[in-house]
Amino acid sequence: MKLNERGLLVVLSGPSGVGKGTVRKALFNMPEQNFVYSVSMTTRAKRPGEIDGVDYYFVSREEFEKRIREGKFLEYAEFVGNYYGTPLDKVEEQLQDGKEVILEIEVEGALQVRNKVKDAVLIFLVPPKKEALYTRLRSRGTESEEVIKERIQKANREFKLAYKYDYIVVNDEVVNAADRIMAIIRAEHAKTERSIHKYMKLIDED
Amino acid sequence: MKLNERGLLVVLSGPSGVGKGTVRKALFNMPEQNFVYSVSMTTRAKRPGEIDGVDYYFVSREEFEKRIREGKFLEYAEFVGNYYGTPLDKVEEQLQDGKEVILEIEVEGALQVRNKVKDAVLIFLVPPKKEALYTRLRSRGTESEEVIKERIQKANREFKLAYKYDYIVVNDEVVNAADRIMAIIRAEHAKTERSIHKYMKLIDED
Repeated sequence: MKLNERGLLVVLSGPSGVGKGTVRKALFNMPEQNFVYSVSMTTRAKRPGEIDGVDYYFVSREEFEKRIREGKFLEYAEFVGNYYGTPLDKVEEQLQDGKEVILEIEVEGALQVRNKVKDAVLIFLVPPKKEALYTRLRSRGTESEEVIKERIQKANREFKLAYKYDYIVVNDEVVNAADRIMAIIRAEHAKTERSIHKYMKLIDED
Repeated sequence: MKLNERGLLVVLSGPSGVGKGTVRKALFNMPEQNFVYSVSMTTRAKRPGEIDGVDYYFVSREEFEKRIREGKFLEYAEFVGNYYGTPLDKVEEQLQDGKEVILEIEVEGALQVRNKVKDAVLIFLVPPKKEALYTRLRSRGTESEEVIKERIQKANREFKLAYKYDYIVVNDEVVNAADRIMAIIRAEHAKTERSIHKYMKLIDED
């Protein structure tokens, strides 16, 4: 029995190469979860087979920038000349609907979320050893040593932002990391600040 | 892999009759836990078969009051002319040793703990319905209607203190309540404020 009905906004982030995507997938495969994705909005062109509202919300640059000015993004970033962002209103609807919204985003975006949704749960995923992450960044493809160095420097800058998150979860094994996140979600629902109003109603029922 | 080594001080409390003892027992029967009891100190006489340091630490009234003045109790109360308290130094040793210390105590004592151990985790156990608790208080024995009324009034006063706790856990089924508490313990260990120091060491290892 849950004491509160509003869903949680769970922000899954961490340094590049830590395995955010894999852990997110493992979460969506968990039994008895109530997770939903948030569909991002973008200004990049729709590719063949992509569906508006499913893969992305496709909007014009003008529309996107208007929405930025109106504070309508939970977070956004510009990447290779295109905007990508998470629409605040859609996420809010899903939360009100009792869904747990999982956002898997970069460190920069994750920290923007806190300003918009005060009770968001920010999780910082870390490798068991820094070296493990370097190895992964190196083995990703055929990039030049320079590109790899840049990535490592970026990861090192991101590592230092862990203290801004609510939780630090070690990604030693994907299934363990997902288990820890499930425990965090259960615990967050039991937090007094989230459940006290519902609880007061419950104990007044007599 | 845990990022921190210090154990948690988990305070399990809630209104009289909610089933704190049963949930505590279920916790100690959980697999892979690392829980310890805290042995209380008392001024009451040792009963046949009781062992000092196992059932209680038995001390004189004078010794107990000296310890109160020295701030050596995590919490204490007087009950039917005898003192009962939780010695701070013993609990601190166990926490340093990486053990999770579970205290199952009354609401009044639980709130004293927060003043002594800032990072204690205070859990307030509640019945799914207030009526369920009343029924339990009524069916406990052969007490007079007056004693039962007093208990219900006490429970009602205790109900109102839930907001002072970190978590509210519904005791609908004992095993569910114990599961929720296990999730809370795992989540607390992942909290950034508990794990950041260990984490910083980990990422500096290269």
